[in-house]
Amino acid sequence: MRGAVMYAPGDVRVEDRPEPTIEKPTDAVLRLSASCVCGSDLWPYRGIEALDGPRPMGHEYCGIVEEVGSAVTTIRPGQFVVGSFFASDNTCEICRFGYQPSCPHRESAAPGGAQAERMRVPLADGTLLATPEVPDDDLVPHLLAASDVLGTGWFAAVAAEAGPGKTVAVVGDGAVGLLAVLAAQQLGAERIIAMSRHADRQALAREFGATDFVEERGDDGVAAIKELTDGHGAHSVIEAVGTQESMWQAIHATRPGGHMGFVGVTHDVSLNGMELFFTHVHVHGGPAPVRRFLPDLLDRIWRRQIQPGKVFDLELPLEEAADGYRAMDTRQAIKVLLRP
Amino acid sequence: MRGAVMYAPGDVRVEDRPEPTIEKPTDAVLRLSASCVCGSDLWPYRGIEALDGPRPMGHEYCGIVEEVGSAVTTIRPGQFVVGSFFASDNTCEICRFGYQPSCPHRESAAPGGAQAERMRVPLADGTLLATPEVPDDDLVPHLLAASDVLGTGWFAAVAAEAGPGKTVAVVGDGAVGLLAVLAAQQLGAERIIAMSRHADRQALAREFGATDFVEERGDDGVAAIKELTDGHGAHSVIEAVGTQESMWQAIHATRPGGHMGFVGVTHDVSLNGMELFFTHVHVHGGPAPVRRFLPDLLDRIWRRQIQPGKVFDLELPLEEAADGYRAMDTRQAIKVLLRP
Repeated sequence: MRGAVMYAPGDVRVEDRPEPTIEKPTDAVLRLSASCVCGSDLWPYRGIEALDGPRPMGHEYCGIVEEVGSAVTTIRPGQFVVGSFFASDNTCEICRFGYQPSCPHRESAAPGGAQAERMRVPLADGTLLATPEVPDDDLVPHLLAASDVLGTGWFAAVAAEAGPGKTVAVVGDGAVGLLAVLAAQQLGAERIIAMSRHADRQALAREFGATDFVEERGDDGVAAIKELTDGHGAHSVIEAVGTQESMWQAIHATRPGGHMGFVGVTHDVSLNGMELFFTHVHVHGGPAPVRRFLPDLLDRIWRRQIQPGKVFDLELPLEEAADGYRAMDTRQAIKVLLRP
Repeated sequence: MRGAVMYAPGDVRVEDRPEPTIEKPTDAVLRLSASCVCGSDLWPYRGIEALDGPRPMGHEYCGIVEEVGSAVTTIRPGQFVVGSFFASDNTCEICRFGYQPSCPHRESAAPGGAQAERMRVPLADGTLLATPEVPDDDLVPHLLAASDVLGTGWFAAVAAEAGPGKTVAVVGDGAVGLLAVLAAQQLGAERIIAMSRHADRQALAREFGATDFVEERGDDGVAAIKELTDGHGAHSVIEAVGTQESMWQAIHATRPGGHMGFVGVTHDVSLNGMELFFTHVHVHGGPAPVRRFLPDLLDRIWRRQIQPGKVFDLELPLEEAADGYRAMDTRQAIKVLLRP
């Protein structure tokens, strides 16, 4: 089968790869309907995260089950499924507590890469969720988004306790930040401030529910948020970038007693304890437990209540994955969908 | 009047000080029934925190109102009052949200020091709470504890979401840590693990509700907590020390999705973002909004439901304050009560 492999920063190739097979009785093998390029794929692409050899790429996926292992009971061939980027048993105490990426049995859900024609998914029962039937083709991008970016934005909004009566600010206008706007809107937030300086992303944020925009960053961005909130800061702030500047921007834009949810994979971030102490902000985040939210998210998509797939502004055949990476790296595309 | 002043590390003197007076219409002047030495007073005493000249000491207090300013409406002369170490208006949006130490009008509640015969309290209506009547003398230590250490331990337990069905671990066996044990017990925690290696403090912790003890620190302490909790970590962990080691000890002793409440004033603490990201722990803390909890705490003390004043294991006349500092510095006393 064909699949994308990163050989070095800037060097992504689609090539012949071994066909995935059932390796453990808890595995499933899927034929992918769609995959995509993640913001986190850009860290090694830009040389910020080291590669230890050629890496099969991709961890966002949806598709048709072709085969399941002998121990799989809830998933069967022919179903259309969506899964999280972490495989988890979904039965242990930590999973039932809603933190599947910290499951003691967790592993990568796409060990062979999801930017491919087919893939093996471990712990299929705990990781995958089937839709009621095979979806119409126009639903596929929305369902694909649930696999990571929607689930991650949703977790950020939940971690920030976005909800009725709340003013929510979102730091970051990538796909996750934009879908955190959508999540905050769905969760009933009263006012949603998107921090973005790009007209096209502002337009999508507005469509998803943003009511205000702040173009400034850092201290100026914080000052602008305070000016919009009687000097107090937002009740809920979502951090969807992962840098030192964006983390403090998010914390300081939160009012005392408010909640900051962070889901940008943090790179070279160090938080001074004394500074954090005096902010009085609740801080929570980490890798999103997408599996916790999947039943609700698939239901909202199936009923066509939300269209998270709008973050895909470029669709390419899998064979042109390298162009997709280039488009995201240069910010010509928000997020690139790949069709095998 | 007489009051304690710190001149240099290790140099505390009780001397004649100016009588406090009403300076603003929102002030009150109290005759103190008791004061005490705080763990945070030891930072400058040990030379870790710089002094910029002689500093009048003390911020924990209770006593009889002698005089109030013309704008004070809820507090009147003759009442016995307890107050927080931060003065706040208790009417603004941040105070009503329960975060009085972040009130935009906050100031020190004891600008002239509370280790003294008398003191001025700013923003008296917002800061002080009166008991139903002048208390019996044996209640005074318990009421004094509510002014800071009990309120701080209580906030830590609330920040850590201690409650029914929860296993709570407490890092730190000073007065705040011990009273966090009491708070967790009062809030209904199922199991309370005190991290302490001192028999006398363990005994008091047990009296306050501790069910288990861990004597190890750092990584060994974390391993011991995990062993007691099926490998997962505690649901709620309270940090009442404020060092780099104790903060990570607390975070890593918390299970994924659990809550860590920190109230130790952080010194030289720096949290690596990536490490925090993968813990999945909720982090919340800061200077305790004692005023939020005072009505409830005074009520529990008045009904003799709790005896937080048991943390005072040494009582001295104000004139001997220097001995009190010495006893706490050498850990011969958990907490020293001073009687003017």
